[in-house]
Amino acid sequence: MADNRTEALRARFAAAGLPPEHIHTDPETLAAHATDKWHASALPEAVLLAHSTAEVSEALRFAHERGIPVTPRGAGVGYVGGCVPVRGGLVISVAPMNHILAIRPEDGLAIVEAGVLTADLQAACKELGWFYPPDPASRKESSIGGNIATNAGGPRCLKYGVTRAYVLGLRVVLPDGRICDCGGLTHKNKQGFDLVGLFCGSEGMLGIVTQATLRIIPAPPAQAALSASFPEFALAAKAVQDVLQAGHLPAAMEITDAFTLAAARAYLGSEALPADAKGHIIIEIDGQQDAVAAELEAIAAILRATGATDIRTATEAAEVEAIWQLRREFSYSLKATGLTKLNEDIVIPRSRLVDLVTFCEGMQAETGISVACFGHAGDGNIHTNIMVPKDDQGRDIREPADRLVERLFAWVLAAGGRITGEHGIGLAKAPWFHGAVGEVAFDLHRSIKAALDPKGILNPGKMGL
Amino acid sequence: MADNRTEALRARFAAAGLPPEHIHTDPETLAAHATDKWHASALPEAVLLAHSTAEVSEALRFAHERGIPVTPRGAGVGYVGGCVPVRGGLVISVAPMNHILAIRPEDGLAIVEAGVLTADLQAACKELGWFYPPDPASRKESSIGGNIATNAGGPRCLKYGVTRAYVLGLRVVLPDGRICDCGGLTHKNKQGFDLVGLFCGSEGMLGIVTQATLRIIPAPPAQAALSASFPEFALAAKAVQDVLQAGHLPAAMEITDAFTLAAARAYLGSEALPADAKGHIIIEIDGQQDAVAAELEAIAAILRATGATDIRTATEAAEVEAIWQLRREFSYSLKATGLTKLNEDIVIPRSRLVDLVTFCEGMQAETGISVACFGHAGDGNIHTNIMVPKDDQGRDIREPADRLVERLFAWVLAAGGRITGEHGIGLAKAPWFHGAVGEVAFDLHRSIKAALDPKGILNPGKMGL
Repeated sequence: MADNRTEALRARFAAAGLPPEHIHTDPETLAAHATDKWHASALPEAVLLAHSTAEVSEALRFAHERGIPVTPRGAGVGYVGGCVPVRGGLVISVAPMNHILAIRPEDGLAIVEAGVLTADLQAACKELGWFYPPDPASRKESSIGGNIATNAGGPRCLKYGVTRAYVLGLRVVLPDGRICDCGGLTHKNKQGFDLVGLFCGSEGMLGIVTQATLRIIPAPPAQAALSASFPEFALAAKAVQDVLQAGHLPAAMEITDAFTLAAARAYLGSEALPADAKGHIIIEIDGQQDAVAAELEAIAAILRATGATDIRTATEAAEVEAIWQLRREFSYSLKATGLTKLNEDIVIPRSRLVDLVTFCEGMQAETGISVACFGHAGDGNIHTNIMVPKDDQGRDIREPADRLVERLFAWVLAAGGRITGEHGIGLAKAPWFHGAVGEVAFDLHRSIKAALDPKGILNPGKMGL
Repeated sequence: MADNRTEALRARFAAAGLPPEHIHTDPETLAAHATDKWHASALPEAVLLAHSTAEVSEALRFAHERGIPVTPRGAGVGYVGGCVPVRGGLVISVAPMNHILAIRPEDGLAIVEAGVLTADLQAACKELGWFYPPDPASRKESSIGGNIATNAGGPRCLKYGVTRAYVLGLRVVLPDGRICDCGGLTHKNKQGFDLVGLFCGSEGMLGIVTQATLRIIPAPPAQAALSASFPEFALAAKAVQDVLQAGHLPAAMEITDAFTLAAARAYLGSEALPADAKGHIIIEIDGQQDAVAAELEAIAAILRATGATDIRTATEAAEVEAIWQLRREFSYSLKATGLTKLNEDIVIPRSRLVDLVTFCEGMQAETGISVACFGHAGDGNIHTNIMVPKDDQGRDIREPADRLVERLFAWVLAAGGRITGEHGIGLAKAPWFHGAVGEVAFDLHRSIKAALDPKGILNPGKMGL
């Protein structure tokens, strides 16, 4: 926004009894709101650090009247450039709206402002013996608003589902500034279309969520975890199927490929994993105390029968955490290679896990570019990391790596998969979006976007819309 | 449709290589597609008994060109007149599309045509050791397409969620005849807006679902159930809270009020229930074999501590079924009063259960009109049955009963509840819809409807849109 527009917005705020000082134009604030965890960057002309729904509403009303681009922002830790203000204009950050307004176990719900960090809500629920299951890896730094905008997942979605399954009600500011309360306080609701669902995962393109009513459930009294190595990746994938087929529905089932395991051995030392480990799984179960110990033993027996070596089980919280720490080390050990990784969160039908890894190994053999696969085996959501090679000066050689991304996406779509299971489309995957969803679904996106945001001011330039 | 229009549609079918004989105009077929389980009725001019997506697409393309009203229909067992062709025109029934196309445990999914009966899919999954959880009471006669159109619930939603949580992908014919595949075969999918969610619960107003890909999960190896009577309804409601607060998440928790229990004693005989039973709950748990027995004992102890009498537990399938049969008898015993019941599927925050029953008892004391409450206590979705009195000639005296419905809805909305948790809006609740969702949300419904169905031909007259 040109200075006169920013001043006009500040004047509007003052006239409405809202604090004009929440609108920032200093270079540090602009720079801090130019990017997320992806590589794109663009400076906004002003940033509203919103402290209330009324501020968001007034700002959007103003922007709508004048056709000013508005880019919503939560904690700013997305992976696809979703909050990068590529058309300039105004960034509206709801990060200051970080209050947990209520936790009501008697109604099985929590009411939070959009800027509340996911881990903070989880901790507050846990203190009361209750549980907010969605657990994106970023939960200590990502906010509920961002989780809703991307319909965030995480390891525990296998049993517990994605963010959408926990959103009962939303307060949303529409692109023209009107405030829409949809859903509500109830666990079921068949009043009309699923507006809550439409806003969940809409990546800030249809409205700005300022408040959410979230479903919480009784915390399972006991947890346990188990890790196992396999001499072949295919055996690890078979173990995933065997456990499910035996009637177990673990909270999480994570799988890791041979390339990642080799990197982990190099990083952690040879005693961390068996030398012949070509596949590895982590399983977390939860439930009633009596059940968990017995189920852990039953699952361990299935893994042994499938050819697992080095089975480790954990029932104490610290031991369970140690097993998850190993999972995090896998990620760190890839970073320790010094290579940039293009982390593609593709998702495939669960039965295609081995095919995916075989395909990636084939690309690696052909091009010399390493590909590391690990992730959520139970729901087929595998983080496929293409390791960008470097030239003699240590600069990334992006072009051949980008070609592998192209080939990966084409393979995934042909295998009945989808190019993103968790991160969203944003800028990063916009070039593939139209082709991935097809002509009719893309056109529906355009119709819905035009119906809710006829001037196209909200998060413009994303999804190729 | 005038005869010439019907003939023109038959000619279009013939020209497209589709069977014109699937378009019916005989009086019996028209009459069989005029109503559902609600009291409204209207004859269509023609009925397409669709056997394929191509037939649905061709018929909608034709209707769209000519502006002919089209009313979609599944099994026709809805409770709100949702499939009644109030504007005449064409009914498109997908009932003949009743094939289970695939069940793939290895991918955790089933692919079905929209006319498949819910119980048939559940049975087919169970044979493979897998489980499709959504269980509307109508599951033996309702179809997956209808379940999706109303986002059907049922007792097990407390643990397992509503239909939406199990829909991975849809084939939908849009109002202009285009075929849209949305979602897909994967358990996570962040490709764009949640089109699957938008169609789920849209009551046939945005498109006609012809095929669905559904998530299935490993069948829990063991089930158990428990019933208990309480000398006060408030104690039954407290027991619901105590069980959840102790860390149990049962599959189902059903509650029944004193009026219904008295009717059940009159119907079933005095030994069926304690004479002083003023509240009753049924709890179903499932999980691993070792867990279920221990959890059953723990829950029984909680109920005893809360003041339960007559606790009955069941671990064998036949015993569990007997407990559910008691639940069904409650419904039959209300029918056996000979009174028409207006079954309102309101939903409230769980903590307001006692307030609801107290409010209903107050209306009953004031007006002499009986009100029977029973239903899904865990998620606050209580079927509130207003028992229509009869005049000397045995005719229903509707007007005072209708006034109680008005008062009930007003109370429910003021209590933070919603006027429908499962059945939908359709015709029956259209008069309250605008007020229930509010101005902005209602306007959003209109915008979305206009964007997807600009000519307003699909299921016109529903939701007051």
